Formats: sequence, C-alpha cells, structure tokens
Amino acid sequence: MKREDLTEKLLDIKREKGWTWKYIQDEIGGISPILITAACMGQMKLPKAQAAKAAELFGLSQAEERMLNEAPYRGSIPQMPPTDPLIYRFYELVMVYGTTWKELIQEEFGDGIMSAIDFNMTMEREPNNKGDRVKLAMSGKFLPYKYYGNDEGVPEYGFKEP
Amino acid sequence: MKREDLTEKLLDIKREKGWTWKYIQDEIGGISPILITAACMGQMKLPKAQAAKAAELFGLSQAEERMLNEAPYRGSIPQMPPTDPLIYRFYELVMVYGTTWKELIQEEFGDGIMSAIDFNMTMEREPNNKGDRVKLAMSGKFLPYKYYGNDEGVPEYGFKEP
Amino acid sequence: MKREDLTEKLLDIKREKGWTWKYIQDEIGGISPILITAACMGQMKLPKAQAAKAAELFGLSQAEERMLNEAPYRGSIPQMPPTDPLIYRFYELVMVYGTTWKELIQEEFGDGIMSAIDFNMTMEREPNNKGDRVKLAMSGKFLPYKYYGNDEGVPEYGFKEP
Amino acid sequence: MKREDLTEKLLDIKREKGWTWKYIQDEIGGISPILITAACMGQMKLPKAQAAKAAELFGLSQAEERMLNEAPYRGSIPQMPPTDPLIYRFYELVMVYGTTWKELIQEEFGDGIMSAIDFNMTMEREPNNKGDRVKLAMSGKFLPYKYYGNDEGVPEYGFKEP
Amino acid sequence: MKREDLTEKLLDIKREKGWTWKYIQDEIGGISPILITAACMGQMKLPKAQAAKAAELFGLSQAEERMLNEAPYRGSIPQMPPTDPLIYRFYELVMVYGTTWKELIQEEFGDGIMSAIDFNMTMEREPNNKGDRVKLAMSGKFLPYKYYGNDEGVPEYGFKEP
Amino acid sequence: MKREDLTEKLLDIKREKGWTWKYIQDEIGGISPILITAACMGQMKLPKAQAAKAAELFGLSQAEERMLNEAPYRGSIPQMPPTDPLIYRFYELVMVYGTTWKELIQEEFGDGIMSAIDFNMTMEREPNNKGDRVKLAMSGKFLPYKYYGNDEGVPEYGFKEP
Amino acid sequence: MKREDLTEKLLDIKREKGWTWKYIQDEIGGISPILITAACMGQMKLPKAQAAKAAELFGLSQAEERMLNEAPYRGSIPQMPPTDPLIYRFYELVMVYGTTWKELIQEEFGDGIMSAIDFNMTMEREPNNKGDRVKLAMSGKFLPYKYYGNDEGVPEYGFKEP
Amino acid sequence: MKREDLTEKLLDIKREKGWTWKYIQDEIGGISPILITAACMGQMKLPKAQAAKAAELFGLSQAEERMLNEAPYRGSIPQMPPTDPLIYRFYELVMVYGTTWKELIQEEFGDGIMSAIDFNMTMEREPNNKGDRVKLAMSGKFLPYKYYGNDEGVPEYGFKEP
Amino acid sequence: MKREDLTEKLLDIKREKGWTWKYIQDEIGGISPILITAACMGQMKLPKAQAAKAAELFGLSQAEERMLNEAPYRGSIPQMPPTDPLIYRFYELVMVYGTTWKELIQEEFGDGIMSAIDFNMTMEREPNNKGDRVKLAMSGKFLPYKYYGNDEGVPEYGFKEP
Amino acid sequence: MKREDLTEKLLDIKREKGWTWKYIQDEIGGISPILITAACMGQMKLPKAQAAKAAELFGLSQAEERMLNEAPYRGSIPQMPPTDPLIYRFYELVMVYGTTWKELIQEEFGDGIMSAIDFNMTMEREPNNKGDRVKLAMSGKFLPYKYYGNDEGVPEYGFKEP
Repeated sequence: MKREDLTEKLLDIKREKGWTWKYIQDEIGGISPILITAACMGQMKLPKAQAAKAAELFGLSQAEERMLNEAPYRGSIPQMPPTDPLIYRFYELVMVYGTTWKELIQEEFGDGIMSAIDFNMTMEREPNNKGDRVKLAMSGKFLPYKYYGNDEGVPEYGFKEP
Repeated sequence: MKREDLTEKLLDIKREKGWTWKYIQDEIGGISPILITAACMGQMKLPKAQAAKAAELFGLSQAEERMLNEAPYRGSIPQMPPTDPLIYRFYELVMVYGTTWKELIQEEFGDGIMSAIDFNMTMEREPNNKGDRVKLAMSGKFLPYKYYGNDEGVPEYGFKEP
Repeated sequence: MKREDLTEKLLDIKREKGWTWKYIQDEIGGISPILITAACMGQMKLPKAQAAKAAELFGLSQAEERMLNEAPYRGSIPQMPPTDPLIYRFYELVMVYGTTWKELIQEEFGDGIMSAIDFNMTMEREPNNKGDRVKLAMSGKFLPYKYYGNDEGVPEYGFKEP
Repeated sequence: MKREDLTEKLLDIKREKGWTWKYIQDEIGGISPILITAACMGQMKLPKAQAAKAAELFGLSQAEERMLNEAPYRGSIPQMPPTDPLIYRFYELVMVYGTTWKELIQEEFGDGIMSAIDFNMTMEREPNNKGDRVKLAMSGKFLPYKYYGNDEGVPEYGFKEP
Repeated sequence: MKREDLTEKLLDIKREKGWTWKYIQDEIGGISPILITAACMGQMKLPKAQAAKAAELFGLSQAEERMLNEAPYRGSIPQMPPTDPLIYRFYELVMVYGTTWKELIQEEFGDGIMSAIDFNMTMEREPNNKGDRVKLAMSGKFLPYKYYGNDEGVPEYGFKEP
Repeated sequence: MKREDLTEKLLDIKREKGWTWKYIQDEIGGISPILITAACMGQMKLPKAQAAKAAELFGLSQAEERMLNEAPYRGSIPQMPPTDPLIYRFYELVMVYGTTWKELIQEEFGDGIMSAIDFNMTMEREPNNKGDRVKLAMSGKFLPYKYYGNDEGVPEYGFKEP
Repeated sequence: MKREDLTEKLLDIKREKGWTWKYIQDEIGGISPILITAACMGQMKLPKAQAAKAAELFGLSQAEERMLNEAPYRGSIPQMPPTDPLIYRFYELVMVYGTTWKELIQEEFGDGIMSAIDFNMTMEREPNNKGDRVKLAMSGKFLPYKYYGNDEGVPEYGFKEP
Repeated sequence: MKREDLTEKLLDIKREKGWTWKYIQDEIGGISPILITAACMGQMKLPKAQAAKAAELFGLSQAEERMLNEAPYRGSIPQMPPTDPLIYRFYELVMVYGTTWKELIQEEFGDGIMSAIDFNMTMEREPNNKGDRVKLAMSGKFLPYKYYGNDEGVPEYGFKEP
Repeated sequence: MKREDLTEKLLDIKREKGWTWKYIQDEIGGISPILITAACMGQMKLPKAQAAKAAELFGLSQAEERMLNEAPYRGSIPQMPPTDPLIYRFYELVMVYGTTWKELIQEEFGDGIMSAIDFNMTMEREPNNKGDRVKLAMSGKFLPYKYYGNDEGVPEYGFKEP
Repeated sequence: MKREDLTEKLLDIKREKGWTWKYIQDEIGGISPILITAACMGQMKLPKAQAAKAAELFGLSQAEERMLNEAPYRGSIPQMPPTDPLIYRFYELVMVYGTTWKELIQEEFGDGIMSAIDFNMTMEREPNNKGDRVKLAMSGKFLPYKYYGNDEGVPEYGFKEP
C-alpha cells in the first residue's frame, strides 16, 4: 500500500459522501484544521488520536490507520514547476520575491532561515468591495546559522591529529 | 545595459556606503518598503517619483533612472529549485502545502486562484521566548475562473460559420 | 478514481458512440462550448447543472458526476515542451513572441499581466483561398501590479516593531 | 557580434532617447508594427527597406543594419518555463488548453496544425467597465498532414529495389 | 483505452503471426507504406478506408478501428534524447548539422522553415560494395515567414483605438 | 581562443563583406559545399588545403587556420530541444518518425544503425506550383551490430580464468 | 507484451531456479556470453538459434521467443545519470576522460569516432595482491568522418538548379 | 562585484602565496576552521572580527571585507548532480541511504528533520592499516514538525469568519 | 517481481504487525542494524544468513529471500533533488559544504576521494538541553588517484605500435 | 584565474607551436602519457615534477604551475549527455551495457563496484584489414561493499543510548 493510494481512497470517500473539508476537520478535531487536510492529502501524519478518529470516520483498516500516523515521504506536487495555476502563483512568488525576502529577513535577523518545520499558518477570507481576498499568515521560527566553534561540547572543527 | 548589472551596481554602492535597506526605504519612501527592495533587486519597477529619488540617492545616470522605472523581466532566482537555504524553505512550503492550499481555497471561494499580481505582503518580527519568529502576511485578490459564455460582449466560444 | 481515468472513460464513450464535440457541446449546453470540451479533457470543472447533463449523457455514477464538478489539478500536456506538433506550435509562439508581447502590453497598459483566469477565447474557421485559417481570439483582463502601500487597510510593508 | 548584443544596444538607445515602441514602429513603418518590435527584440528579421530605416533611426553601422536583415536564431525567452509572470500566463494557457485546442481544431479541420509561420496577430485594448482587457487575435493557416502517396512526383514511400 | 495500448496490441499480433511490415503495408495499401507503419506505431492516423482494412486484418473492435482513424497525440520516443542508438543518430544529425541547414535553407529560400507537416519521405537501400547504405529522401514544403501587414483582410497589427 | 569565437568572427566578416555561402563555398572549393558551411559554423574541420584557402579568404592568423583544421567539439544547437523553428522541425521529425525509421530500417537491414559519420547529404530546391519544396537526401552506411564471438582475433567475451 | 516484462520474467526464473549467468550462457551458447546476458537484459537480440535455445531453457511461448529475436528499443538505465554506484562509475569515466579520449583518438586516427556498434568487449578478473581488479577490454572500429564530395555516385552537396 | 569573483581572488592569492587552509584558518582564527574555509569558498559569512582579519591577511578593500561579512547566496556546486568525483560520493550517499536515514531518525525522534542550519561538523583523519579513512562527524539539532494548533498565540488554522 | 514491490511488501507487514526497525534489526541481527534497514528499503543486499532470517520473520517465498540476497539497482529517492524535507537537508549540505569538503580533504590527503563503498556510518541521539541532536558519524576509506604509470604490470598508457 | 582558462591557454600554445600530444607527453614524461593529456585538459593534477616541466615547456607563471599541481574540479564535458559524437558513443555504451556490466561483475565479484579512482587505462591502435580499431583496456580495483558491523574499531551502527 502506498500513501498516495490512501489519499486517493480518502478523496473518493469524501466525494461519495459529499463531505467538505470543514466537516472532516470538525469530525477529527484536536489539531489545527489545515494540518488535518494536509495529512489527508498525504503530506503530514495525524497524531494517534486523530488517526483513530479518521479511521472511524472513513471506515479504514488498522493498517490504513497506522499509515495515517506515519510521517509520509513529502512532496505533494506531481512535478515542479507546478502546472496547476493556483499552486503556480505561490511558486511565482518565490521566484519574484525570494531574493527580497532573503535581503530583508537577514537584515533584521542576521544570517539564517525561517523554519519550514517549526512553522504554522492560517488562511482567512478578507472581505473587500473590489473582490474578496485570500489572506495567508505564515509564522516560522528564525533559525540562525551557528558561527562559533566548540559550543555544546562538540569537538573542534577541522582535521585533528588522530 | 542589463537590469542585473544595475542591481549589482546598487548592491555595490549599498555595501560601500554601509547602508541598510531600512535607510534606503526611508530615503526613497512613498511606496511600500518591501517593493523598494524588490525594485532594487531587479524584480519590480519604481514609480517615476521613486526612481528619481533613487537616482539622486545612488547617483545614477538618466538611463539608469529610466531603467528603474521599467517593468523588469522578472525571476530573481539563479536557478530553480533555489540552492539558497533561506529561499528553498519557501519552495518547500509550496511542495508540501500546495495541494492543501488548493483544496481549502477552492472549498471556500470556488474554482480560481489567489492573485500574485494584485497582491501585497508584510513581514514582521514576532517575539517569542523560544526564539523569535518571522511572520509573513500575504493577501491576494481571489480571481475566479469564468465559466459562462457570452458575457461582456465577447463572441460565442467554439467554431462558427465564417 | 483519478481525473485522468474519467477523461479516458469519456473519450472511450465518445469514440464508441461516434459523437463529435459539437454534439456533446450542444447536449450539455448552457456554457461556452470550448469550456465543455476543456472540462471533458480534465482541465476545467463543469458547473452543477452541466455536470448533471454530462452524467446523463455519458451514463456516469454520482461520484463521477461530482468529480466533473470539482476544480481539477490542471496541466493537460504529458510533458513540456509538448511533443505533439499542433500544440507545440503554440508553445513556439510563446518562445518567439513572448518578449514582444511583454513590451507592447506593458507600453499600453503599464506594469502588469493579461489574466489567464479571467480569460475567454473563441476559435473560428477563416476561409481563405490560399487555404483556410484557424482564427483564435483571446481576451484576458489586464491586471496591474499594485505599487502603493497602505491601501485597503493592509498593514505597512516591511519589518515593524512588534 | 551577436544578435542579443544588438538587441541590448537598441533597447539602450530607446531608453536614452525616451522613445516608445509606437514611435519606433511609426518611424520604421511599412510592415506590421508588431513585427517591428519583434525584430528589435531579435526574433524576426527586418526587410531591407525597414532595416535601412532602422539603421538611420538608431544610428547603426552597415554590419548592424545587415544583421537586422538576417533571420535570427529564434527563441526570446531566457529559460523555459518563462519566469516572467506576463509571459508565463501564455505558457499556462498552452498547458491548460492545449489538448482542447487539439481536439477542436482537428474536429473542424482534420489532422494537421495551425501554422506558426504563416501566422499573424493583432493586439487591442478592449475597454471594459470591470477593467480593460487585452485582446489578442491570432490567425494561422491550417496545414493538413498529407496522407496519400505518389502525389507531386515524389517517389513511392518504403524500401524499393535499388 | 490509450493509443499506446493499441500500438502494443498491434505489435503483439504482428509478432504472433510472424508478419512483416511489408506484408501489413501491402494488405492495408492505398497510402504510402511508411505512413501505414507510422500509424501502427501510434504516430499517424489511418484514413477511414485504411482503418477498416487494418481492423479486418488485425481483428479489431469498432472502437479500436475508430481510434486508428483519430489524429494521435504525437511523440513516439519514450524520452529525449533518444536512448536507442539507431534513433539517436538522427538526433545527432540535428545537433551537428542543424545550424548549417538553417544557414543554407535561408540563403536559398529566405526566412522561413521546411514544413514537417506538408512533408513526405522515402527510404531506399543503396547497394555499395563497401557496405550497403540507407538512403533517406525528405521533401517538405518551404513556408516563408510573412513580413507584410494588412494582407488577406487581417486587421492591422499593434494596439488600436477601441 | 574558442572555436565559437572563431565562428562568430567568420560570420562577422561574411556579413561585413556581404558574402553568400555560395560565394564562400566556391572560393574554398574542393570538398562538398555543405561541409564548408558546417566547418565555418564550427561543426566540421576543414582539410588542410581548404583551411589554407579559408585563411586567405577571411584573412586569418596561422592559429586560426590551424583551429579550422581541428576536429571541433561538436554540437551546434545552444540548447535542446532547439528553440529555432527551422531546426525544431527536424527535431520533431525524429520524435514523430523515429520509431518508424527503426522498424523499417531493421526489417530491411537487420539489427544495426544508419551511420551519422560515414554519411553524406544533399539539399535541393524542388520547384512545385503549390510552393517550392526543400529536398534533403541523406545517405548513411548501414552498420550492423556484430552478434558472433571470437571473430577477428578478439578474445572470448565473459569472465575468464586469469 | 513489452520487452521489459520479458526481462523481468527471465530474471524471476533465473532467481527461482538459482541459475547463474555462467550457466545460462553455457546453455544457450554459440555467441559471445556477454551478449547473451545483454539480450536477457533487453538490450540485444538473440539470433534465431539462440532464441530457440533460450525459449527451451526458460520455457517461453513462441511470441516470447520471437521477441527475444527482435532488436529491442535500447537503453537499459532507468534514468541518467545512473543512480546505481557500479554503473555511475562508468558514467563518471566519460565525464572525466571524455575530452582526453577525443584528443588522443583524433590525434592518432584523424577526425572520426570509435564505433559503439561494430564493437566488442571482454571482461576479466585480474588477480592483484592489493585486491583483484576488473579488467575491461573494448575494441571498436574507427569510423572516419568523410570529407570529400562526389564519392560513391552521391550527387553534389549544396543547392542545385532543379 | 559578485561573491564568486571574491572567491576566485582569494584562491588566486592563496595559490600565489603558497598558503594552506590550515595557515589561513590559524591566521583568521576565533571560529571553527571548517567555517573559515566555507566562507572563503563563498558559502558562509565571516563574523565582523574574522572578516577584518581576513581583509588584513589577503589585503582586501573595505567593500570586499564587508562582502565577506554578508550572508551569501548559497550553493557551491556548479551543477547538480556534482560532476566532481569527491563531491559526487556524498551525493550518492544521499541517494542510497536517504530513505534509511528518514526511517531511522523518525523512529527515534518522531516526525521532523535534522537541521542543516543549527548544525556543526568535524573532519578527522582516522589512521587504519588498510588505508587511512576520512571521518566526518555531523551533528544537527532535531526539529520536530509541530502538530498542535493554537500554540504560542497564533490564530486558529483554517478559514474563519472575517 | 521488482525489488520495489518487495520493499512495499516488507513495509506493509511491518505496519500491520506494528514492528519497529529496532525489533527487525534485533531479529535479523549479525550485521550492522543500519544496513538491515537499508536492505529492507531496497538499497543493500542481505547476506545469506540474514536473508534467511528475514524470510522467516516476514514469511517470504524462496524467490523473495533470494532477491533480498541480490545487490539491488541502487537509488532510493523517487526524484532528485529529494522533495522530502528530512532528506533534502542532506542534499543541501552537499550543495553548501561540498566544495569545502573537497578543499580540506585534498589538502590533508592529496588528490582522491572518500569512498562511499568502503564506508560505514553510525547514528546517535545526542542529548542537549536546547533540544536533542542527531549525530551522524561517517567513515570512508580515502582512495587516492593513482598518478604513476607502469605499475602492477599494466601496459604503458597511450597509443603504441601494434 | 580558473582552471578552464589555463586549459584554453595550453591548447592555444599547442596549436601555435604545432605540437602533438605525443610530443608534450614525451617532454613532460615520468607518468602515464594519458594522464598528462588529461591534466592539460583540466581533469587531473600533474605531480610537482611534471608541473615544473610543463611550466618550462609552456612558459607558465608560478601560479599557473601551482594550479597544474592542484586537484581540479573534475567534469570535462560541457553538458551531459555529451553532444560530441566521439564522446557520446562511450555514453551510449553505458546506457546499453550498464546493466549487463552490473550483472556480470557482481556475479563474479559479489556486491561492489569497479573503482574509477584506483583505475588505469590504455589505448592502442588495433590493425584490422576491415578497418583499424580503437582498443581500450581499462582496469579498476574491485571495491566490495562492506556488510559486517564492528570491524576496524568503528562503533556499532544504529541509535545508541547516549
């Protein structure tokens, strides 16, 4: 069994039942709803309690329930660059604003990155009389590159006499 | 003269003068600071007034000032996937969460995309006692796919008798 | 069930019945015929009413009918550049005229893009005594890049004090 | 001298003089304005008369004038897929509608292609109270695949006795 | 049913029956033999009469017969560059002689291309006492780029007042 | 000095002098004219006598003359697939007809290839009242795969006792 | 039936029977053992007599036996560069020594190539007290580029009056 | 000035002076020696004090000193996969052991990654009578994916009423 | 049967039984546990004794047991660069530190590589009050390029008189 | 200074002087001639004594001499697959025979590779009345994968208690 087959099965059930993601998120509950959808799409694991609820909701076998609780091999896009227009627009933002983000984050925080692991995200509808907007808020821990040697008991860098 | 040569020149001056982006943004002013940096990085144009101020600040020729006012050929990343870790993390977010964004935006708004053109963005430092966080807020107009024919005086779709 | 399997099924039925696209477009009706074909090819959704008619026409299950009403993961070409000569010619037009389109559209409209979402299209046969011609008319809304800060209640760009 | 160096030179002069494409098209005249821009962008040749006028306008050497009259090595996009959003939207149209174009053109005309060589194109601004639109009209000769042997004095296909 | 499955089926029957292409070409007849093989390989359609003969010869269903009469999605090589040595040699000729062909064809004919659609081809064995040779003759219509505006009732190029 | 710089120099002189390939081929003479052009394009070497004549014609240094007599690193296309339409059409022929060529050549000759080295080629204009045609004739020696061991004093294949 | 399915079947039988390649080579015999393995791996054909012996040994159907006697679509590596370390080392040799081979072969033989078709090869274990070595001997016919026109009755190169 | 030009300059000086990395690391000092080399190779920044020492050692301008103190656009390999054998072996380790690392790290630590930012590394020579060995020790902080909502004052995930 | 199918089967059994890698490693035993996992993931073979134990543990057929004892076609990552974040971080280390490793290893050992074949590896949890760390220790034999001719009875390099 | 510039300089001198590789190999001497050519092509280093002789022969600066003595960043082919026919034939051999080499080497030697580092090679002209042949003999040390834990004092594989 591959994770993508499980994803296809969940989407088939969702379609047949006529469920929305909102409904699935409420039924499983307990963690952030965006992660529940990401897990059903095969990109996140569900914690044990949530996997159990998902198994009940979708009528899964024990092996399928356990697979939902495993960290998947991530990467949801069939090929990069993404061919789907909705997803491509985010890819385009990286191409256009990527170097600007690098300049500004590093001026503010120093050398390092915004974590994509210790990371969370919200989506909201932003009403606007010229047409509603999608509002995404992302928050990732800043992780600085460590530049000093000998910290934390790690042996010296570089070649040493054996 | 290529836009990338102008970008290299601006970065050389910034380095020699010891300026920060904050300083450059304040000097040029009048539009969102993130766009001022993006324009200096060769990804946006500066409106005429801002291009004039930039020319004064950096000591540019008239041709260079005009080039800053042109819409550039966008795409700031030397190659995709980006090799720089800070920028790659955003690329990774697209790969991991892209299909989830598609599911949730389309459940809420219907078939369409979040615009990357009618789009704005903020960055903030989010203090946190486990380590400060980078907070990005993005807001793009939702653009629905149009599914009905004959609207707005456009001729019928499909082959017609000549 | 994957959308591409549904596309293959629709094409099998079309072939067995000996239907033309013209016939299918007329039977389903109500929206632009070019979109009906695009939806059958797995690139657009059909609105509910049209999905119902398609289900009746092709004898689909309820789940298949619902899938036709879902926004698909778009991207109809098996690989890019397209290997099929008819489709490749359009790809070639982008390569040869792309920078010209950029120059002329931006001179006329300013910095921005022609939308591929708020977009429509017609095809016509253009009789010509040296050989008939394919005439394509495309019309997409011009979307300008937004260059000014603080509009629409969005917070200032750039790093702020927390 | 490479054609791309000549393109860069023409764009430098255009910028320094503050010319528009409209002005350049009117000055050179005699052929379709869109081709004049395409030739300046290094994708088309200028016929001799036009190359001479361009040489006068831009102050070119005889070798540069002759280069403008040569069929260039075409392909204006630095890399595919195009990273610039304006041009990418056309690429996306090929990905999303390519198979639909193939189905409909071949149902109407039979097996063959729309020529990208015996091809012309117009662009117009289409006023619209929800926002003006870019209107592109393309017209290419339909070229049918030839399916019968022995026509036009061509020898039989296949292996023959020597 | 996919066209490549039909190709595989035809090759299976050919192998089981022990037929040669020569035999198949003679049985189907009526068009150039090279196109008959290309159609069986899934790259060309067979005209209706030939599709009917092929259906009889191979014992095909009506749907399979109709599929043979459809213009396929072309592109016969599993991946490019081709890994098979026989086919790669042709690819190599394009790499080595491509720019030479461009120079010579354009010096003789002007700016344009040799059509790959209005195109025919023969293959012959050329006896030679140092080893027989494969002789390929290709003939494609020259298609000139059109450089003049306003011909054939097409509206002027460039932006016009609406 | 790189071979591509020499090619650029030859093309610059050709353009400045207003020479045709026909003229250059006649001046250099002695070998097939198509190879003279290919050598000037950096894809073939010129034999010593021809290199000397080319040096005289173009006014080259001794080192440049010797470089013309060297076997170049072949591959004339900036990137594959070729972006130029004239050259792409040949690439397309390989994609569409490649597997057909393989089937037919191997049915006639057995397992092997058509040499791209022991190869020659002609180009002719083929007058035609529907539009003149480009006629290419290619002839390459058939090289059979060798299937029997121990021929020509070569030791047995496979692992042997040392 | 695809050739790769036949390869998989042969490897399954080899594994179940516990056979070695040595055993299979001896059983089939008559041609070089390395080619027998290459044919079983789907890269060479077996001559008729050997295909018959292989069919008997592996218990193949007549269609499978005939498939073994067909020239396959060659290219045994799932993707290039090869991910398997043993095979990658050969790929690396091409990258590191390729230009050296070109320099030395062409200094010795003139302009041309070493044939990969009229080619044979041996492998031997070379005992060595620092660790045994794999010894590969390759021998390919040198094929010179032909530089003179008009040989072998081939018409003159270049454009001719029709 | 580009960072890669500075790297080339530093390597030129190192070569002319006949310095070793050991010497440069000792002269600059204060941080882990492996990072000093990485910074000279254009992949890390040097802290201010170290940049000053490097400037003195290599005789750099103030702008070059400041550039050494900037976070570079990382990615030191000219193209991936790396063509150099020493570096390729590490790439191969990722291909062969990557999924194993994923399985074992996630069994031990749960869902997350080993940081490549909060990361350090040592190299040692490991004497061995069968041939000395290169010993690499890497240590990266484990970063768990965060699976619970509402932590740290971040708003709820998912679409909310505006 | 393909090796990847066997891997999928082993992972299915592991999931259904609820086993950990630790348990599987202990049950199979006798060789390094990291290799046992790598073999189950299809990247290493298991020695005969271990393959037998694995067959007993997982209830495999004789053919499956033998397959576990075969050297697989290595390369565990579905595509490169790896899309999974945990594995990508290692890929990133190669990109960022690759040239540094080359400089330092070659300064210490001379020209050569660290073997990825005669190679071993450990993983440990490194407790740390700022968050535990993953500690990887790698040790590969240094293999020097051999620079002198005529050693070990190998014939002289270079072309010789036959 | 980059190594490729030094290579270009050496080839320029070789061409101007009219030297052969044989002459250069004899002048530098002391190591295998094939490596001397490889070093001049920028793929190997020259040992100190040979670098000194090369410096004298070519009239190099001290920095250039030292660069010849450095291990270069290897990879001599401008792009893979190689576009030059001579080099491509070797690449093709890897594609066609790669899996066969893997099967036979591993049946003879067990799991491992043929080293491309502890490797040597000869080239000879093999006279043959059907046309002389290029004979390549390669010999690389077999390096077995190590499958047993705890050897050579290396700590146990797998996670351990800290």
